[in-house]
Amino acid sequence: MQYKAIKLVKRPGLTITPDLFETVTLETPELDDQQMLLKQTHMSLDPAMKGWMSADRNSYIPPVELGEVMRSSGVAEVIESRNDKFSVGDRVVGMIGWTEYAVSTGAGLQILPPDVPAEAVLCVLSLPGLTAYQGLMEIGKPKAGETLVVSGAAGSVGSMVGQIAKAEGLRVVGTAGSAEKCRWLEDELGFDTAINYKSDDLYKQLTAATPDGVDLYFENTGGPVQHMVYGRMNAHGRIIVCGMIADYNTDKPAPGPNWLNMIRRRLTIQGFAMPDHWDNVPAMTEKLSAYLMGGKIKYRAHTLDGLESAIEGINLLFTGGNTGKLMVEL
Amino acid sequence: MQYKAIKLVKRPGLTITPDLFETVTLETPELDDQQMLLKQTHMSLDPAMKGWMSADRNSYIPPVELGEVMRSSGVAEVIESRNDKFSVGDRVVGMIGWTEYAVSTGAGLQILPPDVPAEAVLCVLSLPGLTAYQGLMEIGKPKAGETLVVSGAAGSVGSMVGQIAKAEGLRVVGTAGSAEKCRWLEDELGFDTAINYKSDDLYKQLTAATPDGVDLYFENTGGPVQHMVYGRMNAHGRIIVCGMIADYNTDKPAPGPNWLNMIRRRLTIQGFAMPDHWDNVPAMTEKLSAYLMGGKIKYRAHTLDGLESAIEGINLLFTGGNTGKLMVEL
Repeated sequence: MQYKAIKLVKRPGLTITPDLFETVTLETPELDDQQMLLKQTHMSLDPAMKGWMSADRNSYIPPVELGEVMRSSGVAEVIESRNDKFSVGDRVVGMIGWTEYAVSTGAGLQILPPDVPAEAVLCVLSLPGLTAYQGLMEIGKPKAGETLVVSGAAGSVGSMVGQIAKAEGLRVVGTAGSAEKCRWLEDELGFDTAINYKSDDLYKQLTAATPDGVDLYFENTGGPVQHMVYGRMNAHGRIIVCGMIADYNTDKPAPGPNWLNMIRRRLTIQGFAMPDHWDNVPAMTEKLSAYLMGGKIKYRAHTLDGLESAIEGINLLFTGGNTGKLMVEL
Repeated sequence: MQYKAIKLVKRPGLTITPDLFETVTLETPELDDQQMLLKQTHMSLDPAMKGWMSADRNSYIPPVELGEVMRSSGVAEVIESRNDKFSVGDRVVGMIGWTEYAVSTGAGLQILPPDVPAEAVLCVLSLPGLTAYQGLMEIGKPKAGETLVVSGAAGSVGSMVGQIAKAEGLRVVGTAGSAEKCRWLEDELGFDTAINYKSDDLYKQLTAATPDGVDLYFENTGGPVQHMVYGRMNAHGRIIVCGMIADYNTDKPAPGPNWLNMIRRRLTIQGFAMPDHWDNVPAMTEKLSAYLMGGKIKYRAHTLDGLESAIEGINLLFTGGNTGKLMVEL
């Protein structure tokens, strides 16, 4: 059977352009013992992918090699199996790549319960939800009553961070890039305050929204919000650095704040990436499923159509054009 | 009996000037029950004092009030006692202040063994040594074989940090402000490499001295060294922020590095100040005494003469003019 896949053939410069990719038509092979054939139904697009495409960055996981199918997580159905642990009809989640079909031994794949929609899996139980949980709960160690600010709050990770924090009893303030996103955060997701970071009176709004200062800052963006929140941190505040999307598409990263406030307020700033924490995935999946089942977490998918829509579509993540967790339906 | 003390009467601007202080002559009072009279012999001068003088900074301990005797640690002898726990002739260390004599109930004071010179107490067993131990060992959690860079390495804290790290089996690189200081660090204190941060080829020297990258950075100064070392941090590196002396005397603190590297290398940056860790002092004093007795720690005191020498002398800390732990002999 023939299918399409997209290979990475060139390293990105400042932006992701169509010439980095090549769509190829492949033939599904005969399965060896313990192999199975997956038909992917939903494929996740995440900001971290830009890092995975870049060879020259000493990053947290090896880059995608040129000529390899582009890396991504996704939901797939088992349509043929010579593997003892997976049966035809099972739905799985894992790193499947930019491809319609894939052959797998099951390594790194998890079987999904039948009643969870694929959108919920990619929004909540996959990379963004795991990243949010790991960063907020394991690294940030929040306490009920504390104030959290999360930047990129309408993004796939930020929206999970804010909702988990609300479920844990924190005061939650988010920043996002449009009035519409802010309304969604406040009205649908229950954020205490959402602020459009493009507002002229951003600092005034941030100050008003954090009358008791800031105990936790979950950083997804960089930019002016970073400097303003840093200056409002309380003693023993924690900053979790998960993303710096403002700086992904520039070769002149903006300076960070001076470190003097680190001493005055005895702050801890910690950068992290999920691949260091895979061991923790089963436990976190359980926690996230409980929030989801308990109605504590809502999600919004922004779905593109067809494999090749990924090539242009991924840039929505860097322009802020997506309205929800970006994914491709195959 | 009459004695002199120095009160803080004005808040500092960018620099510490003589008009901030007033020398007064006081009379020793009759002692109440449980009080004792201390005659101070050695008084410590530390960079942190500038923060203690400033009212407008939301810092880790309350500022010295205007009209109060200036705060400092020191070594004193008990010359009169109505306190059960202290006898005439005992030597003590604690926060005694800029004064020749002081009345105390013993709160916060520790009795010293008779055979440790006062210089060793103020260099090793007092604020600088405790700060070095707390930051390096408790926060940095070094492992033998790792590479440490310490800035301000010839300073009172930095010189302790490097020596403790050597005793713990680390590769130790220090930066300091003169060739003479660098020679002292390498030849006397056993640093693997000491680099004059004023060198034109600072980056090249730093790179050569850290062929395997940097696992731990102990920050005392800020400035260009900060940015260079930050860029050489290894995955899971730890940065301990103890001082930012380059920025104490400016109203335009220099920008810090961009946070992207925090994620790529999963770094942790932690600011700290000793007053959060007083509970740990007895345990740390024991460890530091063991290093001292074992010949693992050398020290160099820069001694000024007489109480009022503190007024101008404290600025040596900010110009780099001191050649060792700064203190006043009374």
